[in-house]
Amino acid sequence: MGQAASDYPFLKGHGTENDFVLLPDLEGDTHGGLSEDEMAERVRRLCDRRAGIGGDGVLRVVRTSRMRPAELVATQGSRSEWFMDYRNADGSIAEMCGNGIRVFVRYLVDEGLVTPGLPIDVGTRDGNKTLLVEGDRVTVDLGIPQVLTATSVSIGDRTWSATNVDMGNPHAVAFVDDEETLAGLDLTRPPGHDEATYPHGVNVELVVRRGERHVAMRVHERGSGETRSCGTGAGAVLVAAAQADNAPRPATYQLDVPGGTLSLTWTEDDHVLLTGPAVIVATGRTSL
Amino acid sequence: MGQAASDYPFLKGHGTENDFVLLPDLEGDTHGGLSEDEMAERVRRLCDRRAGIGGDGVLRVVRTSRMRPAELVATQGSRSEWFMDYRNADGSIAEMCGNGIRVFVRYLVDEGLVTPGLPIDVGTRDGNKTLLVEGDRVTVDLGIPQVLTATSVSIGDRTWSATNVDMGNPHAVAFVDDEETLAGLDLTRPPGHDEATYPHGVNVELVVRRGERHVAMRVHERGSGETRSCGTGAGAVLVAAAQADNAPRPATYQLDVPGGTLSLTWTEDDHVLLTGPAVIVATGRTSL
Repeated sequence: MGQAASDYPFLKGHGTENDFVLLPDLEGDTHGGLSEDEMAERVRRLCDRRAGIGGDGVLRVVRTSRMRPAELVATQGSRSEWFMDYRNADGSIAEMCGNGIRVFVRYLVDEGLVTPGLPIDVGTRDGNKTLLVEGDRVTVDLGIPQVLTATSVSIGDRTWSATNVDMGNPHAVAFVDDEETLAGLDLTRPPGHDEATYPHGVNVELVVRRGERHVAMRVHERGSGETRSCGTGAGAVLVAAAQADNAPRPATYQLDVPGGTLSLTWTEDDHVLLTGPAVIVATGRTSL
Repeated sequence: MGQAASDYPFLKGHGTENDFVLLPDLEGDTHGGLSEDEMAERVRRLCDRRAGIGGDGVLRVVRTSRMRPAELVATQGSRSEWFMDYRNADGSIAEMCGNGIRVFVRYLVDEGLVTPGLPIDVGTRDGNKTLLVEGDRVTVDLGIPQVLTATSVSIGDRTWSATNVDMGNPHAVAFVDDEETLAGLDLTRPPGHDEATYPHGVNVELVVRRGERHVAMRVHERGSGETRSCGTGAGAVLVAAAQADNAPRPATYQLDVPGGTLSLTWTEDDHVLLTGPAVIVATGRTSL
């Protein structure tokens, strides 16, 4: 590739090993001219872990005012200067990602595009999100959870009762007995779930207790399989654990995920705050 | 990271989706000062597909004359200006990689460090290799194969007779009946093999015929599991197929692998030539 006229900048980063290709496109003139199909194809090429750079998704960094006309509906009413144009590795458009938005804000801070120490607003297809950067940790407000009718999940011939939590997307949180059970679960296939409760599928979190206000999870994300971390899933686990413990608010939990450690707080005004690392590991150019 | 003093250049590339992080270190002053343990740890961080950049291995590009004293034994007698210091994703030192060396030479040509169109010598821990670049295809001479006593391999309750080919590393090549059988094989675990014949394990190629001088394979690499391509495995398949067909030399076969298409020739003077694509997809800096 080298000096190819068509190459463009990228970064790679991750939050608890949920990893992303970032595409700086501040004025929208690098990728904004692509059709929907072309952009989806570019995202698939970038996220290919063998033939591309590799990632769970792409975070395009663009001024809210420079989003394409067809996308304006997603940004209406946003008061934020920066918009997280997020897509899954398969090219599909996604609303929000609790790990990805921390990496997104890490980039804004590194580049001096926002002021660290003050709350930072980021527009997403799930509305405006507010974040705070403190050293190497980034906190994002995941909003207000909804706890719905209890349900159950099954893996192989075992079934567990589960808490049904909506964090903007559907979750089923089940507590298992011990570490050995958690480690031995087969998550190569989607856990069984109630199709009537979750007509569009569900993200399933399997949780074990590790101490007071301290739990660990493995997660199966619909459409992705088992992942190293899931931001909204972490929020759902907090809610299920705090309810089970009848914990007074603000309730703060440590949550260990396969890719690292997160801290979660359920505030007195019912918001879920997710705090965790966000790092940029490489920066460069590509013509993928 | 941004302007971190410790960052260094990298590229990412692949040959039939066998992918690599390249580390340009022409004068040996970027990575040459690291201890063996430090270098192995850096390779593991770079190859981590979630927390790093991701790759099947690292190709350090260094002048043969600038290899560290402890490594000189590997390069003795090399007439090549450039040395491929190759390591597996787990940090271990490796001798040779038929897909990696094509990507290595693609870099040398892109950077103007060698002259395309003429044979290019590259030093490896398996000795000197000669390559030729023609457009987007790169040919590498894999050397002279050794065909040893016939053996067998098994998957589940099925067993196939297999050709035992040494391409500098051990291979067992088995022909299966049809495409459906090939597609249905479970390669999530190492195929069964004769422990006496292969005391250090074996790479297993499962092959189906697609036409005259045209075959397809899936491959299980010892230590890595199923991969998208294997250069020496491709050479072993050529040898087994040409023997089975009693093909006169020079014998040229097309070989389809999960990551693309290779062309192989068994020359009149008993050398195996591997021809395939080699592309650089990204270039940048990292401090991993």
